[in-house]
Amino acid sequence: MVAVQHNPGPRERILAAARQLFASQGFHQTPVSELAIKANVSVGQIYRLFKDKNAVILAIVSDSSELKTSAFDDVLKAVDGGALSIRDAFVQLATRSLSETEESLSFEILAEAYRNPAVADQIGEICERYRSIVRKMAIITNPALSEESLDGAEEVLLGLLFGLGHRTLSRPRLPIRETAEQTAGMLMAALTGVPRVGNSPSHESAWALPTSCVPA
Amino acid sequence: MVAVQHNPGPRERILAAARQLFASQGFHQTPVSELAIKANVSVGQIYRLFKDKNAVILAIVSDSSELKTSAFDDVLKAVDGGALSIRDAFVQLATRSLSETEESLSFEILAEAYRNPAVADQIGEICERYRSIVRKMAIITNPALSEESLDGAEEVLLGLLFGLGHRTLSRPRLPIRETAEQTAGMLMAALTGVPRVGNSPSHESAWALPTSCVPA
Repeated sequence: MVAVQHNPGPRERILAAARQLFASQGFHQTPVSELAIKANVSVGQIYRLFKDKNAVILAIVSDSSELKTSAFDDVLKAVDGGALSIRDAFVQLATRSLSETEESLSFEILAEAYRNPAVADQIGEICERYRSIVRKMAIITNPALSEESLDGAEEVLLGLLFGLGHRTLSRPRLPIRETAEQTAGMLMAALTGVPRVGNSPSHESAWALPTSCVPA
Repeated sequence: MVAVQHNPGPRERILAAARQLFASQGFHQTPVSELAIKANVSVGQIYRLFKDKNAVILAIVSDSSELKTSAFDDVLKAVDGGALSIRDAFVQLATRSLSETEESLSFEILAEAYRNPAVADQIGEICERYRSIVRKMAIITNPALSEESLDGAEEVLLGLLFGLGHRTLSRPRLPIRETAEQTAGMLMAALTGVPRVGNSPSHESAWALPTSCVPA
């Protein structure tokens, strides 16, 4: 989200208007002329600031991801500096994902990424940053995890944070605060615990279980 | 996914064509006339079978979800009948999510759901079925879980399966098979383990931790 300042300049006005219009009616259903009216700028001004409508999407993704990844970085730094427990760090990451307010815009952009390689590339690069952060979190939680377990943790953490940030249509029952707490508790157990049920063998490095029984 | 039969009828041809066109160019950028050409039917035939283009989306969602939720139901039945361990059941659910091949179509439909209450309602109802299934899986994994922990498990399982099914743009590093195995291992630990690090108090019912330290 771009915080709208008291006197937002044309770039900020265009991006704020684009967020609203793309989310409510779709990227392709929003002509530049309508964007100009909503942003209170001329069409020429949009083209002076952005090469085309695609460049507006790229700027939205870039601004959003800059804010989100630096927030994630800050959480990681707080853990590194001893100001935040790793469990509370998971609570904060989950809370941030669960507080996502632009799911509609997000789905619109994700759909567009499959038609527009530049958007897909930008999303891919942002995810590399998220991957690095969640992997570090997993290592801090349990330094004994094997590389294989860390690879798994990276996929699970990334998928979970994405899913929690896009759950509104699934009719959530549990409020954000409780969901974040429960998520953090489950992640701590997942990253540090040894399964206690079933016939899984006991492992030193937690859940690095054998990969011998995958279904077809 | 609708399996295209040897001699697909007009309904099947229309839905298969719609899946391809909506995914590749978008719902709103696909006129009914183009859908008719691709499906090798007349425009009139489309309108005899579907009230409008929205009804085509609803049929796609309905067909897909019918297949997916019955697959999930089958996994649950296999666990209930003792034919499948709960851990292998998680491997199967994760594998099914990770094998999703229509992410682009899915994002297009999810974006549309924010503009079309009928689509949102249908997705919400499908998610109720998923919620019921994953909640039962959590109970089977650990019958001692509190209601609060079960509520959390439901949100986490649903979010995780959704995220794993929509991870392609995040440039996954771990293949499906290994990711599904690692996911199942983490879920078993999450649902049955007690956190072993940090200063969390020990709890009888696993990760039902106190909700007293949520960040602002």
